[in-house]
Amino acid sequence: MLFGSDNISGVCPEVMDAILSVNVGTASSYGNDAATEMMNATFNEFFETPVTAFPVFTGTTANALSVAALCPSWGAVFCHESSHLAVDECGAPEFYTGGAKLVTLPGQHAKIDVTSLKASISSLHVGNPHEVQPAVISITQINEAGVTYSLDQIREFADIAHESGLYLHIDGSRFANACVALDCSPAEMTWQCGADAMSFGASKNGAMCAEAVVFFREELAQGFMYRHKRGGHLLAKMRFISIQLETYMRNEVWHRNAAHANAMAKRLSRGLELLPGIELSHKTEGNLVFVKFSEAIRQRLGQNGYEAYAGQPRTRLAASFDTSV
Amino acid sequence: MLFGSDNISGVCPEVMDAILSVNVGTASSYGNDAATEMMNATFNEFFETPVTAFPVFTGTTANALSVAALCPSWGAVFCHESSHLAVDECGAPEFYTGGAKLVTLPGQHAKIDVTSLKASISSLHVGNPHEVQPAVISITQINEAGVTYSLDQIREFADIAHESGLYLHIDGSRFANACVALDCSPAEMTWQCGADAMSFGASKNGAMCAEAVVFFREELAQGFMYRHKRGGHLLAKMRFISIQLETYMRNEVWHRNAAHANAMAKRLSRGLELLPGIELSHKTEGNLVFVKFSEAIRQRLGQNGYEAYAGQPRTRLAASFDTSV
Amino acid sequence: MLFGSDNISGVCPEVMDAILSVNVGTASSYGNDAATEMMNATFNEFFETPVTAFPVFTGTTANALSVAALCPSWGAVFCHESSHLAVDECGAPEFYTGGAKLVTLPGQHAKIDVTSLKASISSLHVGNPHEVQPAVISITQINEAGVTYSLDQIREFADIAHESGLYLHIDGSRFANACVALDCSPAEMTWQCGADAMSFGASKNGAMCAEAVVFFREELAQGFMYRHKRGGHLLAKMRFISIQLETYMRNEVWHRNAAHANAMAKRLSRGLELLPGIELSHKTEGNLVFVKFSEAIRQRLGQNGYEAYAGQPRTRLAASFDTSV
Amino acid sequence: MLFGSDNISGVCPEVMDAILSVNVGTASSYGNDAATEMMNATFNEFFETPVTAFPVFTGTTANALSVAALCPSWGAVFCHESSHLAVDECGAPEFYTGGAKLVTLPGQHAKIDVTSLKASISSLHVGNPHEVQPAVISITQINEAGVTYSLDQIREFADIAHESGLYLHIDGSRFANACVALDCSPAEMTWQCGADAMSFGASKNGAMCAEAVVFFREELAQGFMYRHKRGGHLLAKMRFISIQLETYMRNEVWHRNAAHANAMAKRLSRGLELLPGIELSHKTEGNLVFVKFSEAIRQRLGQNGYEAYAGQPRTRLAASFDTSV
Repeated sequence: MLFGSDNISGVCPEVMDAILSVNVGTASSYGNDAATEMMNATFNEFFETPVTAFPVFTGTTANALSVAALCPSWGAVFCHESSHLAVDECGAPEFYTGGAKLVTLPGQHAKIDVTSLKASISSLHVGNPHEVQPAVISITQINEAGVTYSLDQIREFADIAHESGLYLHIDGSRFANACVALDCSPAEMTWQCGADAMSFGASKNGAMCAEAVVFFREELAQGFMYRHKRGGHLLAKMRFISIQLETYMRNEVWHRNAAHANAMAKRLSRGLELLPGIELSHKTEGNLVFVKFSEAIRQRLGQNGYEAYAGQPRTRLAASFDTSV
Repeated sequence: MLFGSDNISGVCPEVMDAILSVNVGTASSYGNDAATEMMNATFNEFFETPVTAFPVFTGTTANALSVAALCPSWGAVFCHESSHLAVDECGAPEFYTGGAKLVTLPGQHAKIDVTSLKASISSLHVGNPHEVQPAVISITQINEAGVTYSLDQIREFADIAHESGLYLHIDGSRFANACVALDCSPAEMTWQCGADAMSFGASKNGAMCAEAVVFFREELAQGFMYRHKRGGHLLAKMRFISIQLETYMRNEVWHRNAAHANAMAKRLSRGLELLPGIELSHKTEGNLVFVKFSEAIRQRLGQNGYEAYAGQPRTRLAASFDTSV
Repeated sequence: MLFGSDNISGVCPEVMDAILSVNVGTASSYGNDAATEMMNATFNEFFETPVTAFPVFTGTTANALSVAALCPSWGAVFCHESSHLAVDECGAPEFYTGGAKLVTLPGQHAKIDVTSLKASISSLHVGNPHEVQPAVISITQINEAGVTYSLDQIREFADIAHESGLYLHIDGSRFANACVALDCSPAEMTWQCGADAMSFGASKNGAMCAEAVVFFREELAQGFMYRHKRGGHLLAKMRFISIQLETYMRNEVWHRNAAHANAMAKRLSRGLELLPGIELSHKTEGNLVFVKFSEAIRQRLGQNGYEAYAGQPRTRLAASFDTSV
Repeated sequence: MLFGSDNISGVCPEVMDAILSVNVGTASSYGNDAATEMMNATFNEFFETPVTAFPVFTGTTANALSVAALCPSWGAVFCHESSHLAVDECGAPEFYTGGAKLVTLPGQHAKIDVTSLKASISSLHVGNPHEVQPAVISITQINEAGVTYSLDQIREFADIAHESGLYLHIDGSRFANACVALDCSPAEMTWQCGADAMSFGASKNGAMCAEAVVFFREELAQGFMYRHKRGGHLLAKMRFISIQLETYMRNEVWHRNAAHANAMAKRLSRGLELLPGIELSHKTEGNLVFVKFSEAIRQRLGQNGYEAYAGQPRTRLAASFDTSV
């Protein structure tokens, strides 16, 4: 059993079978194929509303491209100081926006503190050319500490955003784990709360290389097809990525995988809590468990083959769709 | 039988089997895995010299990122006026370079005319801050008209480039077809002719979504890992792309696939030449056949299910690794 | 007498006096001053309609910023192959747009050939993500060959632009010379012909360092104040640039200066035409004279102190507001 | 008497006279003129070492262009959280670098806290493609709180920078006030402490529109002429900006102006300290005074015509070269 990351798992059987199934004969390239057509329809069903979705390969791309669609180059993106967007993308959002500024905010358990957010937004003077202009709030759901925002909290962020003319973006690299944790539908957690766009993640939860940028308001996607191509993200043999997303959304694959991962994390979490010298850093809501091990335990774990992020004040353990008991 | 593009084919059996074969257990993410290690070693063997290679998903990315590594934002890239780089990337090279200029050149059969190239380079005044500065020559091999540059011609381009402090880039989206056509090795066609970097294509010749940027001089790759990540091209589950490239290069898959496609194109080409009212626009050297059909023939082809690019003065027919007789 | 460029002249007396006149006491910085307020009002009077104007220091900035306001990063700007925009800005338009593409067009006497323009626009497929998208037509008036477009021709360009959803930009670095040549008002030559935005030049015609981006449709200026600041073009002691533009537009300074320069060029031109071995390359309409000298004459001119662009197939002679008889 | 900013003052007599003095006859454009040649020589004398200097018009440009020269697009620039670079440039550094990240640091009196700096640098993992890479430390001298770094402290920053392969940049928008405050030469305060590049300010201290980017290591200026032009900062009638810098550096104009402003600020500061209900927020070292007024005093000042930044927790008063007693 390894808990280094949910990225270390492979591809779940349903997705791999689907990839194999479309490897038959020829298909028009660049998205003019049957699998992509199906996928587009399925996205609408999945979100229970017409959406505009663009497949990409990595979460970095999904995040950077969505932010670029929502934020002018002189804009400010408000995000948590430990968000993937701010910390783990090597500046991709700055690159794709043409130099927008990420304003990083504090908050316990990697959740943006609302008071700080409001103060930060209003510290920038709209119409003052010396300052970047508020443009986007980005939250991660389930977030980098494995913790969820409640639907009410998401609604609050959307309200704060819209009152000031900003957009709300959700980094949903692990949105499936969040839906399971909150027992809600993707629609309930996103546009029904007021989210404008989303980085839709599938790779961490059983796909091979499939994420998407999803717009809940069609007008926000204007020109996006050019950003997408121009960044190098329009695949020639598109069917092989579309079918991953199609399969992932259909037949509850996304939900089953996430439910399993969450359950495994919960089990791991409960077992660890019983042990002396172990402390949970955050509540285990999804598939991520954050613990502080005592030094003694840490050594024992290492000897028993549990890989984990080393040299950190806390250790992150990630369960996956294929984590076995 | 369809000849719309080599992109309409699926994945060749060897590559698909390899993808399946690595879908076992866990593997470190972002390239710290066994398949990627193998791939790196295989790249060196394949090119018979140490190279630095970065996998990407699309040819657009391979082209735009390599050019960005070789050309400052104030640089000029000399390429053919019908090159993919100039015409079919929605400005990706301009985006990734931060606004470099593509200087497009004429030349028969999509081959850069050397006299025009020299004139164009020397028309820019080195050290004059009002003008963009010559930086890169980019040729496509096998090119957009399905025609090859001879090794001597590539050497000439490299010499022209290096005499003026420029780099030579090869868009090798179909380099395998060129190697087969010229009966030479990848090494002979690239760095042994003086090429500095290359867009290495595999997707059009049997892979699913696997291209690479290959540097033949290590110092040119400095900082490239950040460009790569920042553009969104560092895959989490890297093994699934690395194994495509690994398999493609090993066991002559690349060569067999290209040889088949070339042979099919040649056969098609010969058959067409015999027919009245058909004219070849360019010599058929690789897997691309360019014909001018008379209107009568065009209609008959349509009725018999041959898809092809429509509304063009000439029609491109592309054979693939799986084109059947 | 020197004819190297109109940039080699200094500042005309009216502008220099005005600069001195505002150097009294304090004034709010960054444009919140009386001179800037006056200038804004004067711009409206000058163009006989409400316009939105942003002072900048150089023609490069005026061109690059206006194009960036009109063209998305995936857009195409159609301009003449010898336009300043394409040839003499070291790629500034590409930089400020985030990598748009300048599509350069042929045409006699540096005037865009309309047939080529139409063909070029329609060669790009709107909605095809592989291609940059038509966005702007940019013409230079009086152009790089010293020749004017007639008002009818400008109207034609505007119509072509607007029919396809493009904007018409005028590089008016020497617009004053054009107004004099055509005996028309700035309004007649710009928005009344359908122009959407303009690079307004004053430096070549008597100012010290004063150009402007002028928008004839307010909505096009949206967000422009941030581009302007972010590029480093918002001067702290703004009154010193505003007063230049104010003075330039008031009291016919612009017209007198241009009329003088044009007259001097015409006189020079007529004198030259009488001489054997001299040929005018273009009709002399404004302040620029283009001649082909025979070698003998060229030597004699050099010996008599006439500086001019050397090593060119043709020689450009520029008259200025202070060119003496 | 107004203390809103040192930018509200006009141009000092010496600089204005010099501007007038070069407005005679013609001069080659774009810097090939006598005034620019003089200026270049004077820069070397001024800094007692060969430097490479590029005139620009605004402090924003000086800062953004110098940072762009020192920092790759995937780099991190460490600066104070209240630095002009981070707060008042509308994201110009992000724009010119192509999307680098400003890492903002705390520290009393707007001085970067060294411990935080070291922690922040080492929190980024060199060679990890997921993270931006440490590239530049930027300090402001005299800083945004009107406070100086000692020469020893600057040396410490340079050492920290160079030990990790970073560069030290000084935002010297008010460097003259700092030299006066520390009673040191420009050389002592910059390259002799290890600074690599500097934003050289003159506009706030008596010039009209003259700043410069100064490189203390020639190799850092490589390619800078193209960045400079491409950003729109190469003035045609260059003599008018060069002569400002030339005059400013010669004959102690810079020193006299700054000494006067500092003395006036000191006098103001002393007077204020004697009054009840007034507290200085920072030590008055240069020309900036920061006070907390009681509400009663604030009202009285307003009635007596003292303009000042309103609505701030503290009030900044700026003395200038022409502040009278």
